Amino acid sequence: MPYFDHNATAPLSDAARDAWLRAQEEAWFNPASPHRGAARVRARLEAARARLAELLGAEPERVVFNSGATEGAASALDWWARTWPRDRRIAVSPVEHPCVLESARKFFAGRTAWLEVDADGAVRLDALEKLLAGGGIGGVAVMAANNETGVIQPWREIAAACRAARAAYLCDATQWLGKLPAAGLGGAAMWATGSAHKFGGPKGVGFVKLAAQAEGFCALPGGGQQRGHRGGTEDFPGAAAMVAALEAAEAETGARTFQPAFSRAGFEAEGRQPPAMPAPPWAEERLRWRAEFERAAPAAAPGARVVAAGARRLWNTVSLLMPRGEGHRWVARLDRRGFQVSTGSACATGADGPSHVLAAMRVPPDEARRVVRVSAGRETSRADWLALAEALGAVARELEETE
Amino acid sequence: MPYFDHNATAPLSDAARDAWLRAQEEAWFNPASPHRGAARVRARLEAARARLAELLGAEPERVVFNSGATEGAASALDWWARTWPRDRRIAVSPVEHPCVLESARKFFAGRTAWLEVDADGAVRLDALEKLLAGGGIGGVAVMAANNETGVIQPWREIAAACRAARAAYLCDATQWLGKLPAAGLGGAAMWATGSAHKFGGPKGVGFVKLAAQAEGFCALPGGGQQRGHRGGTEDFPGAAAMVAALEAAEAETGARTFQPAFSRAGFEAEGRQPPAMPAPPWAEERLRWRAEFERAAPAAAPGARVVAAGARRLWNTVSLLMPRGEGHRWVARLDRRGFQVSTGSACATGADGPSHVLAAMRVPPDEARRVVRVSAGRETSRADWLALAEALGAVARELEETE
Repeated sequence: MPYFDHNATAPLSDAARDAWLRAQEEAWFNPASPHRGAARVRARLEAARARLAELLGAEPERVVFNSGATEGAASALDWWARTWPRDRRIAVSPVEHPCVLESARKFFAGRTAWLEVDADGAVRLDALEKLLAGGGIGGVAVMAANNETGVIQPWREIAAACRAARAAYLCDATQWLGKLPAAGLGGAAMWATGSAHKFGGPKGVGFVKLAAQAEGFCALPGGGQQRGHRGGTEDFPGAAAMVAALEAAEAETGARTFQPAFSRAGFEAEGRQPPAMPAPPWAEERLRWRAEFERAAPAAAPGARVVAAGARRLWNTVSLLMPRGEGHRWVARLDRRGFQVSTGSACATGADGPSHVLAAMRVPPDEARRVVRVSAGRETSRADWLALAEALGAVARELEETE
Repeated sequence: MPYFDHNATAPLSDAARDAWLRAQEEAWFNPASPHRGAARVRARLEAARARLAELLGAEPERVVFNSGATEGAASALDWWARTWPRDRRIAVSPVEHPCVLESARKFFAGRTAWLEVDADGAVRLDALEKLLAGGGIGGVAVMAANNETGVIQPWREIAAACRAARAAYLCDATQWLGKLPAAGLGGAAMWATGSAHKFGGPKGVGFVKLAAQAEGFCALPGGGQQRGHRGGTEDFPGAAAMVAALEAAEAETGARTFQPAFSRAGFEAEGRQPPAMPAPPWAEERLRWRAEFERAAPAAAPGARVVAAGARRLWNTVSLLMPRGEGHRWVARLDRRGFQVSTGSACATGADGPSHVLAAMRVPPDEARRVVRVSAGRETSRADWLALAEALGAVARELEETE
């Protein structure tokens, strides 16, 4: 049963399951207890923190384990709002995940500037730099890769621009992690968030990576756990499972030896000719499969078009605007054929109206309602991709007949 | 290896492990996704919510799954602070867990009244009623049972007093759940919090039970999950494991058929003659074992005294003031003999100075530093209790010799 809804959640990886079960057997004591067994758990917890920090390229003491990226975004923006002068504003991309948008609304109501994005939904660096130069912007929130379209944001360049302007930068890396290398997300000036369940870890587990100037950061007041950064008994089994899942993903994707060239290309590369994304053999192969699918899908379902087709996108995500029928009809019919896909973000499934991401990309509402999001996983095969294209064709014929 | 640190954390129960693993196999989809498999997860998530609500005696729509009681306390007090008039104060017991104390400090700084407690650390109902009658108190925070001493608070009576005064009541039930019946904690006017890992569920999983008037409550802004009460992908495996653990505990302790008489006794019973706690055969037996230990410990270690010896306390908890030697020395020596115990709260282990709970009970600081907390679990046997008393005697002799 080919599962194409990885951007909503991924199955628990074997590495994560094993790590969780082992921790529940060997290291379930409260790390804050005063006996020796607890000290051993404390040491293993800190080892997990150091390993995650290493993968991100961060200092271990900046990594705070939490319940996921939604908590991460809220705690970061809450902290910014509490510790900055009242007139400081933030700049947010309009294609952010709802957890960032709603936290901005809660903590920076009336003090949020919207970043300009191009037709692919990528933040315009020139506009960002101009905004930062104008002053008054304390921080910027731009995700690493979009959950609905897979479009990659120039987050290294945004980080550099924020560094230069002495603005904080919050990068929601939820969709990036496990698909592309984590290295670099831990940069000293950056805030970054992630959720384990998007890359094969357990749900309810995630992290926020603090910037260097966040000594007093406190996500939850309480017993002073995690250097005071978050109260509450630390979930070592969850943290161990998250780190095991990310390690497995990085090993499999070859991320640990892979540095994407667009990070070196710097500002100039950002423009309307996205460079081909250099990738290790593993990722190159996945990009080929995605390209094959993107040719096969419109061939099978004439009129279907790939959102942000020419943009740099995650190898796993394709957002399709179908020629007819609302997205949920395609989802239901593909489901009956054994393919799980989605309409945009799972988090917005209950919400009325078309996707805010597509709206920001100036996709007309009636077209945006015909969206189908396809998101593969590391276990997805070329055959799965091609079978999905075929199924799209079959559903297209069904819908044509029922019209 | 007898483990006497259950108030810090309990081992994962078989019921919880099985439920978690089964959910990870069968129900790992994102409950918010639009396909049928996700709808099945959604249904199972709502069934878990309904079951937890049933155990608490609450309406299902009031139960919000979260990352634990620390988040629960913060989200409740934050919500109170955000939605009440600026001059509204809260009344808090001085023996609360740090998560409640620190959240009160964060969200009600300068607007917190301290409740009077007696020498056992139990809240004085007469003083509470007087305070409520004075007006200006929007809410009250008093735990169900204390983590350091096991002393039970008259929470049903406090709930009644708050109801009468139209004040909100937040009851941190973390130490109560799994040891005594959950029934009643879900009362319509109450806010209640809990952490799964204290009763055999996984760490990083808990709940907050909202009062009826909390329609707009939002712990985390985001994708509108849990009726808008908490953003973030719901952790169904975690929720299922928590509910399985609580069910197992309630079945084993006989809680489902047991209604403690002190809840019927009402206000009048609250005074300086705590009635003997009626209990089902299971709990009666545990109270007998605890009583045996409380006779055996001072016999083995002359001069040891039980904190709040005459008070109504949890069947599992004994706080001992030792005749000599700081608490951590006893912990280390008992540890070498195979017994894990604690000095007061695990959450305050890193903190300097003696316990705030003992301080509120007017225990002198030099005596409070000699505290050893013993907290049994459902699997603890009478032999374990007696062996611990014997070990205390051996450590007492060691410390006497090294003095």
